[in-house]
Amino acid sequence: MASPPSERVRVRRLPKRGAYDRQTIDAILDEGLVCHLGFVVDGEPRVIPTGYARDGDRLLLHGSRSSAAMRVLAGGGPACATVTLLDGLVLARSAFHHSMNYRSVVVLGTGVEVVDVAEKLEALRVLTDHLVPGRSADARGASASELALTTVVALPLDEASAKVRVGGPVDDAADHDLPVWAGVIPLALGHRSPIPDTEVPPGGPAPTYVTSYRRP
Amino acid sequence: MASPPSERVRVRRLPKRGAYDRQTIDAILDEGLVCHLGFVVDGEPRVIPTGYARDGDRLLLHGSRSSAAMRVLAGGGPACATVTLLDGLVLARSAFHHSMNYRSVVVLGTGVEVVDVAEKLEALRVLTDHLVPGRSADARGASASELALTTVVALPLDEASAKVRVGGPVDDAADHDLPVWAGVIPLALGHRSPIPDTEVPPGGPAPTYVTSYRRP
Repeated sequence: MASPPSERVRVRRLPKRGAYDRQTIDAILDEGLVCHLGFVVDGEPRVIPTGYARDGDRLLLHGSRSSAAMRVLAGGGPACATVTLLDGLVLARSAFHHSMNYRSVVVLGTGVEVVDVAEKLEALRVLTDHLVPGRSADARGASASELALTTVVALPLDEASAKVRVGGPVDDAADHDLPVWAGVIPLALGHRSPIPDTEVPPGGPAPTYVTSYRRP
Repeated sequence: MASPPSERVRVRRLPKRGAYDRQTIDAILDEGLVCHLGFVVDGEPRVIPTGYARDGDRLLLHGSRSSAAMRVLAGGGPACATVTLLDGLVLARSAFHHSMNYRSVVVLGTGVEVVDVAEKLEALRVLTDHLVPGRSADARGASASELALTTVVALPLDEASAKVRVGGPVDDAADHDLPVWAGVIPLALGHRSPIPDTEVPPGGPAPTYVTSYRRP
């Protein structure tokens, strides 16, 4: 286990669940689809779900130029982006030791707006391909006006930590003989067969990256 | 569609996706398992994933007495709890109109610590049964020392809003004839067969609320 890059992101509660190596952090970020982006407005917290993508050593975020989150981040306000993958419900013999299996990453930092047009187009490509790898080769890219309506912000991964719980329940020894079933109900985000656009039916069949869709 | 209870929680971006009626809000909160809890530390946002349960007109949150989140919330600091259910990836013909189908709720407010012992035990029962309905009847309830280690906070639902996207892609008319497949890849959190505790195998079979587990 690597050391935390800063005191701010050190996992304090249940520190043995903390991890700071980029391999662990990157794998969680690359599997997730939505981050919960925290920012501060008038001293109060706001948390919104939003898409993201990891691009090397930074997290890319995007949104409408007029969104509160993008205005705060592009303005240099502090941010916290949290990605959580839920892996199971952990049923212990005691209510107290009930838990969840999960893998989460918290990224703290300050965003940098991506303004260079070529870099912004590339960031949008990475964001599209994070959702559906391969999609950017087919979808029409952003026009100049779409680009102007969109703010892209990069959040460096300098201050990031992962927290992971795996495995079964951990009961107190005194509870081991209780006549209570204990174990895990595994959970996972799954996908079903793609549904073609019903308003304007597409002219051809779904591409392989859609029919064989899976998260990394 | 009901009106927003306050300007703070009014959905500004894509306001037609906003909803403020308690039926919509409650259904999302009752289906979700994890909220992303935002709070402020030294002027900076923090967002952590945590369990929760809706108890009538309030959201119950709990955690270790020593956790930063519980200390801030029990101390009356402002909070934002966001619950997001991911329903699908929306592939439009243009990259710009790519989206996700989702149902989310944002609750803003100030927590009230639950200190009365009977009320606290009841809150923990509700929290357990939110994860696995029926579980509290079997699991050993909290001991006095476990209760002392746990902080329970109630966040009123007075200021809550939902945001929902459903349906297929909405492309610009000029893009309708592009030879690009468009549609939705449906997503849902699923569960698999329960795994009995392997460290201390349970004495009996899994109860029905485990073998027939499903979210509301």
